[in-house]
Formats: sequence, C-alpha cells, structure tokens
Amino acid sequence: MIEINSQRLLSDLRELAKHGKVGTGVDRPAFSEADVAARRWLEGRMREARLDARIDRYGNVYGRSSAASRAVLIGSHSDSVPKGGWLDGALGVIYGLEIARACIEQKSAAAVDVISFQDEEGRYAPFLGVKSFCGVLDEAAPGVPDALAKSLFSAEPARVEKTRHLAYLEAHIEQGPKLEAARRRIGVVTGIVGIRRVRITARGQADHAGTTPMGMRKDAGAALLRLANRILDAFAGMAAADTVWNIGVVEVQPGAANVVPAQASMMVEFRDMDARLLERMLAALRELAAQAGRGPVGVELAETARIEPAPMDARLGEVIGEASRALGEAPLSLPSGAGHDAMIMSQALPSAMLFIPSIGGRSHDIAEDTDERDIVLGCRVLAAAVEKIAA
Amino acid sequence: MIEINSQRLLSDLRELAKHGKVGTGVDRPAFSEADVAARRWLEGRMREARLDARIDRYGNVYGRSSAASRAVLIGSHSDSVPKGGWLDGALGVIYGLEIARACIEQKSAAAVDVISFQDEEGRYAPFLGVKSFCGVLDEAAPGVPDALAKSLFSAEPARVEKTRHLAYLEAHIEQGPKLEAARRRIGVVTGIVGIRRVRITARGQADHAGTTPMGMRKDAGAALLRLANRILDAFAGMAAADTVWNIGVVEVQPGAANVVPAQASMMVEFRDMDARLLERMLAALRELAAQAGRGPVGVELAETARIEPAPMDARLGEVIGEASRALGEAPLSLPSGAGHDAMIMSQALPSAMLFIPSIGGRSHDIAEDTDERDIVLGCRVLAAAVEKIAA
Repeated sequence: MIEINSQRLLSDLRELAKHGKVGTGVDRPAFSEADVAARRWLEGRMREARLDARIDRYGNVYGRSSAASRAVLIGSHSDSVPKGGWLDGALGVIYGLEIARACIEQKSAAAVDVISFQDEEGRYAPFLGVKSFCGVLDEAAPGVPDALAKSLFSAEPARVEKTRHLAYLEAHIEQGPKLEAARRRIGVVTGIVGIRRVRITARGQADHAGTTPMGMRKDAGAALLRLANRILDAFAGMAAADTVWNIGVVEVQPGAANVVPAQASMMVEFRDMDARLLERMLAALRELAAQAGRGPVGVELAETARIEPAPMDARLGEVIGEASRALGEAPLSLPSGAGHDAMIMSQALPSAMLFIPSIGGRSHDIAEDTDERDIVLGCRVLAAAVEKIAA
Repeated sequence: MIEINSQRLLSDLRELAKHGKVGTGVDRPAFSEADVAARRWLEGRMREARLDARIDRYGNVYGRSSAASRAVLIGSHSDSVPKGGWLDGALGVIYGLEIARACIEQKSAAAVDVISFQDEEGRYAPFLGVKSFCGVLDEAAPGVPDALAKSLFSAEPARVEKTRHLAYLEAHIEQGPKLEAARRRIGVVTGIVGIRRVRITARGQADHAGTTPMGMRKDAGAALLRLANRILDAFAGMAAADTVWNIGVVEVQPGAANVVPAQASMMVEFRDMDARLLERMLAALRELAAQAGRGPVGVELAETARIEPAPMDARLGEVIGEASRALGEAPLSLPSGAGHDAMIMSQALPSAMLFIPSIGGRSHDIAEDTDERDIVLGCRVLAAAVEKIAA
C-alpha cells in the first residue's frame, strides 16, 4: 500500500502556486517568467525525490524513476491560462510527484515517472509539450516556432516509451459542476469529448428600417435569429444525456437600431463522446442552414474546429473506480467536456483520468478551488490505482 | 397656373450639390464648411428671386415673400448625413425656391415663403432648426449648445407665423422602394410613423461550454435568441400592412465559442402610423420579456426612444393628390417610415408631404438618385397644389 504524505502534497501544491501568484490564483502562461521558475522548482523537487529529472527544449519537465524498467506515467501541465486557478494542471503534476516520491521512499514494487507538459493551455500552441512527447508535433504549426524561440531549454525532447510506460494517468479538477451537484468526490473520466465548431454567416442587404417594407427586406439578422432557434430546437431533440452545445458568438452588422442588418454571423459549438452523434448534429445543422439559405438571404457555413472524441481506457477507469470504492467513495463516471493532455496521450498509451470536484464548477479563474480533503482523497485513490496497475 | 422652370430647377439642384460634393452625393453635415457655404448660396438665390432672405442663428435659411400677407411655407433641409445623397432635403428646399420664384415672376395670387431648416439629420441635435422655428426647442438639450457654438450666424431666430402661414408643404425623396415597386411617380404622405425603440438585456452567467451541463446553465445568449424569435413571431401576427420592425443590434458577451454567454442584448425597433398598435406591440414585447425573465436568466427592458406618429393634414393631402391626377399621374398614399421636418411642423401648421421615387429605394448614401423627369413632375404637382391652397 503506497502511503501518500498529505501534508507534503498540499505544501508542494501551495509552493507551486507561489510562482505567478495572483490573488488566490496563478498567472503562469507557457514560457512566462513564472512558468519557467515553476518548472525549475519542479525539476528540483523531482531530483530531491531521487527522480532522474530534466527540462526538455519544449519545456516539458520529466522525472524518471530508476527503480524499475517499467513505470506508470503520471502527469498534467504546470502552465496556466492568464489569471487562472492554482490547481488546473498543477494538481495532476504534484499528484505524480507525491506518488513517485512515496513509491521510492516506501520501496514499492511500483515505479512512477512524472511529467509536466508544456503549453497545454495554448499560449503559443495548445498541447505543445504532450504532442512533442508523443512524437505527433508539427514543428511548422502556428505558434510552435514562437514557443521554441522563447524556450531557454535545450535538452533533447523527452519521449513516450511504449516498452517502459504501462499507462498514463492524469488527475485534474473537474472544471464543471457535476461532481458537486451529485455530491461525489471522485470522478472517473470515460473520455474527452469530441468538438465540432461551425461559423454560420448570413448575408443580406442593409436597408432603412423605417422605409423598407418587411416583404422587401433581405434581413440577415432575422434570418440568423430564426436559424439559431431552429438549431437550438434540433439539438435539444437529438442530444444524448451529456451532449452540450453553445452559441457563444453572435455578430450583427452594421449594428444600428434603424438599419436592417446586412450581415450576421454566429459560432455554434457542440461536444459529445459519440462521434456519430456529432456527425448527425453537424448534418442537421447543415440542412437547416441550407433551408435558411433558400430565402432572400444567403447563408454560408464553415467548419472551424473538429476534434475527435478521445475515449479513456475502460479497464484503467475500472481500476480507478475500484480504488475509489475501496477507500469508501462511490465514483461518478463522466466525460470530460474540456480538453486535457490525456487526449493526446491516449493515442500513445492506455490512459485514464481522475477528476476531483471544482467548488461551484469554477475554473480558468482565480476563484477556482477545491476542498483540501478532496485533494488528498484524489491522490490516495490514484496511488492505490498505480499499485494495482503496476502489479 | 404657376409654371415652373424645369431647367432652372434642375440646375439649382445640381448647383447646390456642388457644395460638399462626394462622388455622386454630398457630404454636408450641419455647420460643416460645405453646409455653411450651401446656406449662403441659398440665401443669395432667394435674394435673386426677390425674397426677403436671411440666415438665423440656428442656421435656418428663410426667404420671405413680400407679395402677400399670407403665404404657403415650403421647405425641408439642406444639411446631409455624412456621404449622403444629393436630393435628401435639398429637393424640398429647391422646390420651394423654384415655386416661390415662379409665383413672383408670374405675379401669381399665391405667395410662397421658403425655408431650409438646419440639422434635420442630427449632427448636433436632430430637427434643431425646425424645432427653433416652431418654438419647441429645448436650448439645454444635448447637442444644442454645441451647435450654437459652431454657428457663424447671429440673426434672430425665424419663427412660424400662424396668421401668415397657410400651410407647410415638404417634398422629399421616398427613401424607400414602395413607389418604384408600385410604378407610381407621386406619393402623398399620410403621416410620419411613430417609433418605439427598446433595449432588451439578458443577464446570466459565463460558464465553460464544454463542462457545464445544459440543465445547469444560465445562458443569456440562448435566452435572448429565444426571446427574439418570440418577438418576431408576435409582431408578424399583430402587424398592420405598413407596420415595420427591426432587430438591428445584437450583442453577446463575452463572445467566445467555448464560453456560455453571460450577457446578451438587442435593440428592437418598430414603427407604425397607429399609436395604439405601437402600444399593443410594446405591451406584447414587455409580456414576452417578462416570461423570458422567469427562467434562470434575468431579462431587463428599457425603452430608449418613443416618437409619436405625426399624421399629415388629410385635406392638404387630397389637394396634392388631385393636383397629381390633374397632371395625369395617379398618386400612391403611403406613410413615411423616416422622420422629416414636417413631423415637427405638423404640430404648428396644417402640413403635407409629397414623395417622389428613390431609385432602388436607396438613401443616406451617395448612390441615392431619382429620375430627372420625376423631379420635374414632383415640382409641377407641388406648384399646382400651392395654387389651390392659396386660392
């Protein structure tokens, strides 16, 4: 039984949060001064734990155990969004540090490698570090050369080793309200949802809103409002329990009370674990847009983002769930609506994620927080899972 | 029979359009250099026509006939919107000049006073000049002190004289497509529509659009989109033939594809000649907004503009209609969806308006234009109407 040191876990989390501290949160975008200092501190803590640690030229902090030839890889990211929370990313990294350290101290049969990936949040290029680690980084992609130019590090990129790494485990705050609402303390992530994002633009004609009869208008605004409602209706009718959708951007031009809108556009985004459902929703949206375009207003549709669902390894999830139940806590299975390093890692290794609650569902804000008892419980569950996976 | 000189009419219109010329249009906002030059030119042309002319301190150019103690007042405005059309306002002023001039030359029993009001378009304060002329100007209203500070003129304000002025007549381009669509060349304006303008604001909560379940959102954007559709449906169901409405402004914040909107607002405007209908529409809108506000999103409504309908004098309208028919042209009765100086004048004098077609319905743009034959016809109709009114 790997015994984690809860005081040391919390103290390391608080210590890491001093780097880029902003009120109760942190400001630690990739390769900022605070991020680089945090990564150097992490490297130092890994070495103190007797891990073989280094920072590669992408900024990944990688601590390798010398205790065994096979190891469980635990990690997340220590960069943050501007004025973000103290636990987003940091939690999964410090869980890895604490469990690896406990394994070494307690001469456990399990060995743990720890990693803090760089730029998960996409200051330069989202998932920069984990993509490099998995060997799927396009070095010419937007932001990648800028990130490299900003890096102070020169070590060869750390890489996933399929003959060494048994699994990738990532713990994270939920960033949503489901655990809190269900009064559960441990979430087992079924997968990271796929995303479709579409920009719809209606093009009509600006006219005087007093002198142009209703029947003679080419009102791009009204056409878009009608279409938006039909999309909301259609999605509500075809959604599964965890499907989410959002119209987060609406723009109407020229934007005057007395001018019939010449152009109007919106961004429609939807997410689910089921890629076929996403495709059905996209097809319905295309059909509704095409119908809307048969009137006096032209309607164009452009897909601006497409991310496929990344299911987590079901057996690893079951191990985490069993570990949770063994510690007296019934876990909640749920998809992750947000992206995580595990999304990329799952293409290279069997991967699993554990969630702990976010108070009020808040994240990407300095108000983000989690009860310390939940933080400690999550680490105990993950340590127990590591022991089973290594065995 | 007052015979107008069509070549002189067109030549004066072209001459006036040289002041502030921009392509095929004019840029002549109130008290701009071009506007002041145009007003001085107008004053000169009035004097050449043997009118007693002056520019008052509000910039109104007023030409008074000395031929009789009672006169028909004809006018409009010679200021323009930025990069506006050459006929908007100018047409009604030059009609007045030509008819007054013809009356004097032809020793007609009819006498005509001519006026070009200042700032109808509201560079400083909409209807500045006509409000001063009617004695209803609030000198402390926004923009009025700025306009006065800009004025180069010092003459005492010209004022309406109810014992002298038999009626106010204003000719204008339609600024809409109705005459063209109906293949009519003369419009008799039943009145200037009333306007209600309302800002509706929905306030919810920003949340992660991936991690927040649909049922736990306070989505201000979706609430506003739903409400907008209900308003469009309700208005379509209760509108009269000439009612118009517009949602010209829609704003959604923070405005990111992956963030549930925290706030969303729109401007809803509607116009009709029937004040009771406008009030019924406003009541329906208030009820729909109140219903929408019973969900998780708060909805506020603020009336931002209220202009009462200004009916034109029916008997004067009939005189214009008869004059049109006598010249072989069946007139179209229609409301004006845009505001005009006659809206204010109708509170002081029996007032009427004549419309001539706008090519393609275009206005407030340098593309604005009207067939010269229609310009000439409109002036002939108005001259014939003046003769009947004076008789």
